[in-house]
Amino acid sequence: MTVHLVGAGPGDPELLTVKAARLISEADVIVHDYLSNDSILEMAKPGTEFIDVGKKPGNPTPQDLINALLIHLGAQGLNVVRLKGGDPFVFGRGGEEAQALQEARIPFTVVPGITSAIGVPAAAGIPVTHRNVSPAFTVVTGHRESGGSSAIEWESLAKVGGTIVVLMGVAERALIAQRLMDGGLPADTPVAAVRWGTRAEQHTTRTTLAELGTAELKAPSTIVIGAVAAYEFIDGVHVENTVAGQ
Amino acid sequence: MTVHLVGAGPGDPELLTVKAARLISEADVIVHDYLSNDSILEMAKPGTEFIDVGKKPGNPTPQDLINALLIHLGAQGLNVVRLKGGDPFVFGRGGEEAQALQEARIPFTVVPGITSAIGVPAAAGIPVTHRNVSPAFTVVTGHRESGGSSAIEWESLAKVGGTIVVLMGVAERALIAQRLMDGGLPADTPVAAVRWGTRAEQHTTRTTLAELGTAELKAPSTIVIGAVAAYEFIDGVHVENTVAGQ
Repeated sequence: MTVHLVGAGPGDPELLTVKAARLISEADVIVHDYLSNDSILEMAKPGTEFIDVGKKPGNPTPQDLINALLIHLGAQGLNVVRLKGGDPFVFGRGGEEAQALQEARIPFTVVPGITSAIGVPAAAGIPVTHRNVSPAFTVVTGHRESGGSSAIEWESLAKVGGTIVVLMGVAERALIAQRLMDGGLPADTPVAAVRWGTRAEQHTTRTTLAELGTAELKAPSTIVIGAVAAYEFIDGVHVENTVAGQ
Repeated sequence: MTVHLVGAGPGDPELLTVKAARLISEADVIVHDYLSNDSILEMAKPGTEFIDVGKKPGNPTPQDLINALLIHLGAQGLNVVRLKGGDPFVFGRGGEEAQALQEARIPFTVVPGITSAIGVPAAAGIPVTHRNVSPAFTVVTGHRESGGSSAIEWESLAKVGGTIVVLMGVAERALIAQRLMDGGLPADTPVAAVRWGTRAEQHTTRTTLAELGTAELKAPSTIVIGAVAAYEFIDGVHVENTVAGQ
């Protein structure tokens, strides 16, 4: 009788939390975004209703409509799971849904998920922090509508001294790279772009900041900028992508 | 016959990933840090050996010794779980262990966990990103030994425009607050410090950047700096800590 805002993680169904898996199996209704792995929905019990509100390019479901739907379903006393890729509070607009539910006095909980910003680099053998190499990491969205590329002071970010992880940044990558170089980040800073991280199709492209703008990348990719992007620790799950050495 | 570097999440056992729960239940040996919830270890099968390498204040287990132990156990063909709080690649020194195992040619995998940097604020009702409010977040350690406070350009970080999450920052909080204010972050910037996040004892202290240095805080706390730190979305899991409104 609650709306659960639940993170589904980066794609691998085993990277759901135990709690997310339980809530999915108990749900009356699952309101889901585009998920990078459909088999997550197969964990629901028979009779569960699915509502796909995935934002498709050119035909997005308005956020106001999603908010209203969650309030409507919650007010009926249904057990509702609002399932999002990654983590609901990392560019998932979970904060807006929480705010709408709070204002409507619908009980809700938030269940964090493995964010692609950390889990996807890890699957490619890249630690977002590393002792004596990267003492911090910043997660940004390159997506203009999400307030990313224009609201970020990229030149200042270039001076912080840690790893930069860009989500939804493929379209704006040339602009982002230029602004980071304008801020003093060296042109030869390692960059890794990981597509379909944690899935069987996982593919990593290695490049540099100078080449990022012209590198052949496809969305969705997680872009890692910084010394750790050159790392490639062997990962048993995706040995085919890895070679020894850094 | 593999060493699994596994994140245990922020404390709530249900915030383990499905994969982490499975690997714990299958392990021959679990080499674990200090965990904020011992019940996670009760998920192991009978006969599993536990080795506590938790870094105790004043008497830390040297990282080299931990690396050597993992190599030794892995070389015996045991199924080893190296269990860490949060995520292994977020200030967990998982990168160093991965590197040591790689050099010793011991097969290993990395299993991400819910980082306290995101999961703990969420449990206190705080989204680390929020549309039109915070388009980015930076995770830093305040721990000097981990290269935190001295290696970070806090004055540049102050200008980036997103949320700042400080892990292990209680001891250095006065210095951190001063450097962020020197960088231009307003003195009245909201700050929330969440202790024992996701556990029953969870407690949130709200303050401002100007007051952070003298606020009564105890380690371990996750410190959130930025506009979202004033948010307090009701969270069904910890309703006792929350009031309506932001």
